[in-house]
Amino acid sequence: MAHIICAGLGPGDPDLMSVRSDRAVRNARLVAYFRKKGRKGQARALVEGMLHPEAIELAMEYPFTTEVPFDSPAYNLGMARFYDDWAMKLAAMPGEVVVLCEGDPFFYGSFMHLYTRLRGKVPVTVVPGITGMQGCWHATGEPITWGDDVMSVLMGTLPEEDLVTRMQAADALVVMKTGRNLPKVRRALGRAGRLDQAWLVERGTMAGERVARLVDVADDDIPYFAIVLVHGHGRRPEVPE
Amino acid sequence: MAHIICAGLGPGDPDLMSVRSDRAVRNARLVAYFRKKGRKGQARALVEGMLHPEAIELAMEYPFTTEVPFDSPAYNLGMARFYDDWAMKLAAMPGEVVVLCEGDPFFYGSFMHLYTRLRGKVPVTVVPGITGMQGCWHATGEPITWGDDVMSVLMGTLPEEDLVTRMQAADALVVMKTGRNLPKVRRALGRAGRLDQAWLVERGTMAGERVARLVDVADDDIPYFAIVLVHGHGRRPEVPE
Repeated sequence: MAHIICAGLGPGDPDLMSVRSDRAVRNARLVAYFRKKGRKGQARALVEGMLHPEAIELAMEYPFTTEVPFDSPAYNLGMARFYDDWAMKLAAMPGEVVVLCEGDPFFYGSFMHLYTRLRGKVPVTVVPGITGMQGCWHATGEPITWGDDVMSVLMGTLPEEDLVTRMQAADALVVMKTGRNLPKVRRALGRAGRLDQAWLVERGTMAGERVARLVDVADDDIPYFAIVLVHGHGRRPEVPE
Repeated sequence: MAHIICAGLGPGDPDLMSVRSDRAVRNARLVAYFRKKGRKGQARALVEGMLHPEAIELAMEYPFTTEVPFDSPAYNLGMARFYDDWAMKLAAMPGEVVVLCEGDPFFYGSFMHLYTRLRGKVPVTVVPGITGMQGCWHATGEPITWGDDVMSVLMGTLPEEDLVTRMQAADALVVMKTGRNLPKVRRALGRAGRLDQAWLVERGTMAGERVARLVDVADDDIPYFAIVLVHGHGRRPEVPE
């Protein structure tokens, strides 16, 4: 019977994988991962050099990239069938299958769509991982939250008004899915009075890591997976001058 | 010259420590950690059985527990002197010192108060860790965020009105510092229409882990470090019935 183990791989540096995920990846004989058509796959790239020489790889290739709008019925149906199909294939595997997932599988991870289809049918184990956003805040060399700070994780896809309200209501901010939404995210940060404090981080903890103040970055210079951060400042005990 | 390495220990299960923190902890000859007076210390307890037999331990004991209100000048001054003092002691150590920190040191960690005092004086390396809140959401067996969900991390210490507003504005919620604030947190969740979806998790991924629906838990039955969670639901591709 199949046993599905989803290994959270962490933010990118293989040394930041948990001891449990590291062990699962190195011992795996069946390894599955999502990837875009024609790509190697980011999750697969993170475990380069770690897989057993006899490991069999199952590349789960997304049926679409950008050719079908993600809010269309065709997208919904295509993705649902894709997840249904792979859930069935994985459940029919003879023994342990390690599914590779960047970051933490339960935090905006694609594995969840398999998880909801597999659980109750075969045993499923999910191993947490350090999230990509943590890799990004560590790349800035500054703590993200202190004391009683409120932190909000926002998506650049939100309407500008919603972004402004939420940016005003939180101390620390993490904005994901920036990319083509960056001009809007930048305007919202400006309206919320937070633009001067904002950082942009790409590939936190990975080769090619880039950390810059958002005001120094052009709107057309950002990959989709860059993260915008504003650090909280909280309570800090200091001896008065 | 001293080199300070702060090792994020993750949510509790030693197997969820990063490969890098695991190595740092096992190789350390000087190990420092915060603890309350008269306690073993939670961070120290997490590495039980992992330390080198010749490791020298430096217990950094907080000067207060609850006898001084945390918003008083006396508390601020006492804590500032405590951090100043330990930063000086650590900077004077002969070589590598591994400072043990639960969760992720840059996410509400006490180490930050040493970090701001040490950096620029001696080399400081901070190793990320899986956060305690992640241990808690994994304990529920449910993904915390999907698709474009907004997630907010709130503190039970916030005024009730602030809690209500923020609970209404986010999809997924993490509420920390519950404890004696639990009646207020519960009222706020009720007013925000989220109480039925709320979970309470104690000691996620650790021995004695406890997961319960908040409506089934009494107000006086919660330790300070329990976390309240509401899961997001996001976009989920499904084949229409």
